[in-house]
Amino acid sequence: MTSYSLTPVGRVSVSGDRAGIDIFPDYRDALAHLEDFSHILVCWWAHHCDTPESRNRMRTGLPYAPGVTAGVFACRSEFRPNPIGITTARVLAVDTAGGRIETAWMDAHDGTPVLDIKPYFPVSDRVRSPRTAPWAENWPKWVEDAAGMAEIFPD
Amino acid sequence: MTSYSLTPVGRVSVSGDRAGIDIFPDYRDALAHLEDFSHILVCWWAHHCDTPESRNRMRTGLPYAPGVTAGVFACRSEFRPNPIGITTARVLAVDTAGGRIETAWMDAHDGTPVLDIKPYFPVSDRVRSPRTAPWAENWPKWVEDAAGMAEIFPD
Repeated sequence: MTSYSLTPVGRVSVSGDRAGIDIFPDYRDALAHLEDFSHILVCWWAHHCDTPESRNRMRTGLPYAPGVTAGVFACRSEFRPNPIGITTARVLAVDTAGGRIETAWMDAHDGTPVLDIKPYFPVSDRVRSPRTAPWAENWPKWVEDAAGMAEIFPD
Repeated sequence: MTSYSLTPVGRVSVSGDRAGIDIFPDYRDALAHLEDFSHILVCWWAHHCDTPESRNRMRTGLPYAPGVTAGVFACRSEFRPNPIGITTARVLAVDTAGGRIETAWMDAHDGTPVLDIKPYFPVSDRVRSPRTAPWAENWPKWVEDAAGMAEIFPD
């Protein structure tokens, strides 16, 4: 069975109102010039879903779409064959020497292993006219409006 | 040293004018309802960059920005500690039983291992006002206009 090996390069850090990513010392030089970008893609590992049961689950119910059982490739569930999460986050500050990226918000838990950071490029990542499933049609249309999701995902 | 294990779930297939992803039989059920979305995030493994030399390279020159040496977290180079690529692709058709996603275009080579597929959600992935590095300021502003990149990356 082919497999590939991932090494964490940092960890999500969320505490009170602050959110960000702490990059481990060996990888801090890779942050050079990241401050030129307003947004990043954060690629992280849903380590609590790294179990055979979770990784072999191909469909899941959607709490925000009662009655819909979607394939895990058709939703953003953390149950997936490779439990990778991708979050677009706004960058508030980058401390290259200290290995810290301050972000506006992160939808990953404190301590989550970080696998990769990429700059957000409109030509690569920004879709003018996306179509989504009916159950998501009334969701906000921009990352900047994600605060509106609190109404859709109440605690 | 902590590490995590990835299993390929399919492969990029590019041939002539056709592009897409072939999903391996064990993972096809995870495609259920994916046809409800116009765009996907394709998470793939840059397997030819899975070498110690490549994974330990923290900065790289940018062919499209002469004189700039950026950290690998500040560019989309395939040289990175975890050689994961993320491509937003337009979905043309989904054949769940046959395990085939037809896409408009893919910036990954034929045979590239695919790790994950996620639906594109505006609230998660679509930034209204992104700021990019000066060397990318004149690039197209939308995925739909990516054809314009041929002028920036001539073969």
